[in-house]
Amino acid sequence: MSESIYVGVDLGGTTIKVGICNEKGQLLEKYEGATEVEKGVDTVIANIEKYVRHIVEQSSYSWDQLAGVGAGLAGFTNVKEGIIILAPNIGFRNVPMRALLEERLGKPVKIDNDANVAALGEAWSGAGKGIDNCVCYTLGTGVGGGIIINGKIYQGFSGMAGELGHISVVPDLEAIQCGCGKMGCLETVSSATGIIRMANDAVERGDRTSLALVEGKIMAKDVFDAAKSGDEVALRIVNRASYYLGKSMAAVAAVLNPERFIVGGGVSKAGDILFEEVRQVFAKLTPEPLQAGVQIIPAELGNDAGIVGAAGLLLRS
Amino acid sequence: MSESIYVGVDLGGTTIKVGICNEKGQLLEKYEGATEVEKGVDTVIANIEKYVRHIVEQSSYSWDQLAGVGAGLAGFTNVKEGIIILAPNIGFRNVPMRALLEERLGKPVKIDNDANVAALGEAWSGAGKGIDNCVCYTLGTGVGGGIIINGKIYQGFSGMAGELGHISVVPDLEAIQCGCGKMGCLETVSSATGIIRMANDAVERGDRTSLALVEGKIMAKDVFDAAKSGDEVALRIVNRASYYLGKSMAAVAAVLNPERFIVGGGVSKAGDILFEEVRQVFAKLTPEPLQAGVQIIPAELGNDAGIVGAAGLLLRS
Repeated sequence: MSESIYVGVDLGGTTIKVGICNEKGQLLEKYEGATEVEKGVDTVIANIEKYVRHIVEQSSYSWDQLAGVGAGLAGFTNVKEGIIILAPNIGFRNVPMRALLEERLGKPVKIDNDANVAALGEAWSGAGKGIDNCVCYTLGTGVGGGIIINGKIYQGFSGMAGELGHISVVPDLEAIQCGCGKMGCLETVSSATGIIRMANDAVERGDRTSLALVEGKIMAKDVFDAAKSGDEVALRIVNRASYYLGKSMAAVAAVLNPERFIVGGGVSKAGDILFEEVRQVFAKLTPEPLQAGVQIIPAELGNDAGIVGAAGLLLRS
Repeated sequence: MSESIYVGVDLGGTTIKVGICNEKGQLLEKYEGATEVEKGVDTVIANIEKYVRHIVEQSSYSWDQLAGVGAGLAGFTNVKEGIIILAPNIGFRNVPMRALLEERLGKPVKIDNDANVAALGEAWSGAGKGIDNCVCYTLGTGVGGGIIINGKIYQGFSGMAGELGHISVVPDLEAIQCGCGKMGCLETVSSATGIIRMANDAVERGDRTSLALVEGKIMAKDVFDAAKSGDEVALRIVNRASYYLGKSMAAVAAVLNPERFIVGGGVSKAGDILFEEVRQVFAKLTPEPLQAGVQIIPAELGNDAGIVGAAGLLLRS
């Protein structure tokens, strides 16, 4: 029998990225088209169908080889029922996306949120390849997470497992309120948003820092660049983001004892200046038996993690 | 075919407790004999065999109905290999306990540490009955934990998952060193040892508290009794133990999204004065979607959790 293929869909507010993966999680083909959010739910769903059919047709694989389609998106999803409860950036509310796509495509479909999907992508064929149990952080506008247990996404009781950005890590005296309504969440300090906020606070306070010279809005990358150039204020901000990330990992290690922590998303591009501090803090706060053999490494798939992980939903969820 | 039975062994430093469970986790018979640690490893293993054979012989079940034997004990265990790496209170070091018992009994044997076994007991037929995903704390001399995923004990990468007592929760400024070598572990504040330490500190500092009048050594129960009688110093200690327990649960919820937290061990006998504060702190620190439907309740099996959970190892690990 000929090889099965899986199509992964990364559904974003501007573009829909689709890709073909084989059973090993290798990304064989990629294609990208407009989401057209402004035209409404029906058009978005029709576009997904169009791009999925297109990428298979122009490939060397046949439609019969397509074993299923997975889709990931930013938002609250009911994974069991295949319903998008709320996804503001694509304008979905209570959309039975799985059923709609299965009807159009005549193939099994699975959906999940972007952080889980990215975690699965990394676990399947990225930085977690061959590792059964790993925990993935995505440091972007917020801090997302995904828990991989026995090679599969772990959903928890109500599908909310892996909300790593909402681990409360900042002590009360220094805590600020998170978007979720609670105080001291990891997301308030280790996301791009948190880093930018700390930078703006420093500039407003009049701290002596090169960040005051940045034209336009300060971006997280500006803070990392300044820190690498020896700016002490910027370095303190980066260390604070790293400290609480490492502290959250120490907590996760005591709970789950994963083999590997994988860190992706825009903030992870800071590289060594982030990872070295995170590893030091983790080593300082984690009992030795829970550290032995545990690695903290960067994600490998970059923007493709969403496509690959979505394709993997059929096999690994 | 006649019903299968499982024998659970709770191997302690003074006594060996054994019990017969059916497939539903109901404890049908119990028996207890001396461990005789002072006579060495061979005698302890021989005693386990003796008590297991005895309880089956004097029951209405036949030896053929015995599907397997599980054993739990305090110490580091290599669950996969069935080896006790180090168990100071029974004098075991690198003892291939599973192999020794399988040879003597001619039945499948499984072993695990006491916190995991107690968690499984509660999940199988105690406070977690019918719940697939729960997290159990045992608050005793230390703070132990067990993670139940899909009804089974979750071991993690190196068998160290569920070391909940070593989640770092106390802020640096207030942190003291834990027995594990790290600062600020939950165990330093929410174990009986931690509570007693805080009480002794208060008395030594000269705080106005009825704890100064306790004859002999202060016990955790004294602190709870004083708190219930309105002693403000004692109440502050209990609230501190409860606060950090609730805070650790908020972190666990963000990682694992369990349906239920189960709290057992001597300290849990404090009752409402502990649980109400824990629930309040959990509600304060946990994002709403991660709280919905989640319960924090006392363990139900008491000292039998070790026997029942050990019996369950054959079915649920």
